[in-house]
Amino acid sequence: MTGVRKKAFRASFWHCLGDPGNSIESDAAEFFEDGLLLVEDGKVSAIGPADKLLAGLSSDFELIDRSGSLIVPGFIDTHVHYPQTDMIAAYGSKLLDWLQCYAYPTERAFGDPEHAADVADFFVKELLRNGTTTALVFATVHPTSVDAIFTAALRENMRVLSGKVLMDRNCPADLRDDALTAYNDSKLLLERWHGRGRLGYAITPRFAATSTDDQLAAAGRLASEYPDSYVHTHVAENRDEVELVAKMFPQSRSYLGVYDQHGLVRERSVFAHCLHLDESDRQCMSRKGAAMSFCPSSNLFLGSGLFNLELAEQHGVRVGLGTDVGAGTSFGMLNTMSEAYKVLHLEHQPMSPVKALYLATLGGARALYLDDRVGNFEAGKDADFVVLNRAATPLLERRLAMTENVADTFFVLMMLGDDRSVDATYLMGELAHEANHA
Amino acid sequence: MTGVRKKAFRASFWHCLGDPGNSIESDAAEFFEDGLLLVEDGKVSAIGPADKLLAGLSSDFELIDRSGSLIVPGFIDTHVHYPQTDMIAAYGSKLLDWLQCYAYPTERAFGDPEHAADVADFFVKELLRNGTTTALVFATVHPTSVDAIFTAALRENMRVLSGKVLMDRNCPADLRDDALTAYNDSKLLLERWHGRGRLGYAITPRFAATSTDDQLAAAGRLASEYPDSYVHTHVAENRDEVELVAKMFPQSRSYLGVYDQHGLVRERSVFAHCLHLDESDRQCMSRKGAAMSFCPSSNLFLGSGLFNLELAEQHGVRVGLGTDVGAGTSFGMLNTMSEAYKVLHLEHQPMSPVKALYLATLGGARALYLDDRVGNFEAGKDADFVVLNRAATPLLERRLAMTENVADTFFVLMMLGDDRSVDATYLMGELAHEANHA
Repeated sequence: MTGVRKKAFRASFWHCLGDPGNSIESDAAEFFEDGLLLVEDGKVSAIGPADKLLAGLSSDFELIDRSGSLIVPGFIDTHVHYPQTDMIAAYGSKLLDWLQCYAYPTERAFGDPEHAADVADFFVKELLRNGTTTALVFATVHPTSVDAIFTAALRENMRVLSGKVLMDRNCPADLRDDALTAYNDSKLLLERWHGRGRLGYAITPRFAATSTDDQLAAAGRLASEYPDSYVHTHVAENRDEVELVAKMFPQSRSYLGVYDQHGLVRERSVFAHCLHLDESDRQCMSRKGAAMSFCPSSNLFLGSGLFNLELAEQHGVRVGLGTDVGAGTSFGMLNTMSEAYKVLHLEHQPMSPVKALYLATLGGARALYLDDRVGNFEAGKDADFVVLNRAATPLLERRLAMTENVADTFFVLMMLGDDRSVDATYLMGELAHEANHA
Repeated sequence: MTGVRKKAFRASFWHCLGDPGNSIESDAAEFFEDGLLLVEDGKVSAIGPADKLLAGLSSDFELIDRSGSLIVPGFIDTHVHYPQTDMIAAYGSKLLDWLQCYAYPTERAFGDPEHAADVADFFVKELLRNGTTTALVFATVHPTSVDAIFTAALRENMRVLSGKVLMDRNCPADLRDDALTAYNDSKLLLERWHGRGRLGYAITPRFAATSTDDQLAAAGRLASEYPDSYVHTHVAENRDEVELVAKMFPQSRSYLGVYDQHGLVRERSVFAHCLHLDESDRQCMSRKGAAMSFCPSSNLFLGSGLFNLELAEQHGVRVGLGTDVGAGTSFGMLNTMSEAYKVLHLEHQPMSPVKALYLATLGGARALYLDDRVGNFEAGKDADFVVLNRAATPLLERRLAMTENVADTFFVLMMLGDDRSVDATYLMGELAHEANHA
């Protein structure tokens, strides 16, 4: 018989049911030391203590024993540039120079579909190696680059949101579109990809400084015509950039205001960085339901500044974490959580392990308005998850033998772990990546 | 015949002959794409292009072919606490609380020689896994802890400087010594270990806040009696700590001044952190020949602050890098260079790859007054080196295929690499660690 595919995964499980706030221990998280996760046709049907669930389990469940491992929901990367994979860790500049010296030259090659496909395939595998199952992804200005990333993601059945970059000034001539092609190409790609598999389209102006008012207006028009599409851009990353935008848009109250004037601050709008905002900007984002992507390793790598999580939360703004490769220095969300902890600690805002888990999973899902689909193990959600290895290196094995609870274990994994700590990544209950062990 | 052990290593080599300053390309570094390193009885006898040196090579040299790898001098960790190995990545506090909650309880166990030996053995192996060949190491207040680390280091023929912690107030009663035992125990240990193998003794007051004036005076007396011993302590890491010390030593001009009054600021004195110093402090350190240990991952992890390299260099102070495990989050100097880059970039002081190499090798050697022994491949120095793998992960393999010069390669290795990037570590020409490949 064909029937429903039923799987039961046995391991330790930890996931968030809500935002833990700043508390160290929280009812917002649920832990099963010896747990069972039931998956039917790729969706979670139940989670609970193994002894209880095994007792009533029907015989048509395939049992996958991951005992000894810790399973958490798949990580959600709310801001990453796939075309910058090959220029990760490029030395020496701050944002505006870095774009000119490294980003633009690299992105130029993505008009070639073969090159785009090669990088997209590598990128998707790299995300899976690191336990990322959902990502909001910048492509390049070329429509081919969007086809490439969606094709690669669809093949893996991965949840990827992406879109063509819009930029029609202040960038190399051969990387420019214009207001009309920006609108038309985006619409075509949106119609082609949005809602296919687990894909979603993101209207993607690079940032205010590389778009004319006309182009931003066209993007806003498209955003209002397709309210369930995403808007994905950058805001207030670097002080020179903020000044540049202020000069270019003198009529706008603030950098965020430029986007707001064009209807681009709305639900499903995700703004990377948000370092140099003010009270009104945060209020605006909160009121309109837009989200911030906090990209700590990138903010450190480009010397951009320190994200203020406390202020974002005081205003009730949705926040997710982003790797922001190629300015970010790791595809790994574990490493990104470690860098987030450091950035926040410098600002006297220590982030608890459960808060880190939240930001990397359910918080990211909320930022992307996907918390009805992913982010934790509630029944009905996609069974996307990461199997974490407690002994990936001699140091981790030694250190994790001493932790007394799952929060400590997870904290050590985020501080000391890397791709080796990801033993396996599952998408909708199917194995999508498994580590090679010697 | 027994004779001299002669080895010739073939690989790419990169090392510093001097301080490259802030320049990106520098005559201070020497690169051999296809190079040969000749080692006789554990010491470098020559380095140069392989074709040239191979032509005149006598037949009694054993040829070790590491072609394809990049070899750099062994890394020098100028500040690390071996007893804190098992509490690396402990969540949530700043310095003073962190000491109470995590450091002191962990250090309590080092009165037990078996425990101390177990941790010391693991620690030494972990350093070697990460390419560190020289380290200045905190032990605990227990003399047994010093015997353990020196025994482990001697077994590996590793260059380790360490000493008994001195603390006689403001810490748990069962971790206190006093001025007299501090002096006597240190002297005994110094006589036992200093100069044995490649070991050196470091007089190690924990920090001003945990020592009485009497104890600091005793430490200063010992330091003057043994001018070639080291002094190893902390200064100005955290603002609360600085205030505490100011309250405890109201007669002192500054935190550093407390040490200076007792003759502890001198050549071979190494001060970890140095975040909250002033102009006079830096002048004092420069004049007296003392060194700073810059510990970026620790400074981020404990939210302590940002080290200012530019000011240190303007004053001509010697500076090395430190992992500062357990507050540091990695034993790896590659990762430590990456974190240093980020800290300095936040302060608009981007560190070039060659400067990073310098700080981790020759700069560290100068900080420790060991640059006549280690730090580069000049003839006569100990042949301590690291064999770096250019393809340790799929991402590194892909990214490093695109670098155009050794500086870029090294930068990518420091940003993306980890212990996997260390294929092998050699101490005096002998293999001390080799990575397991699947």
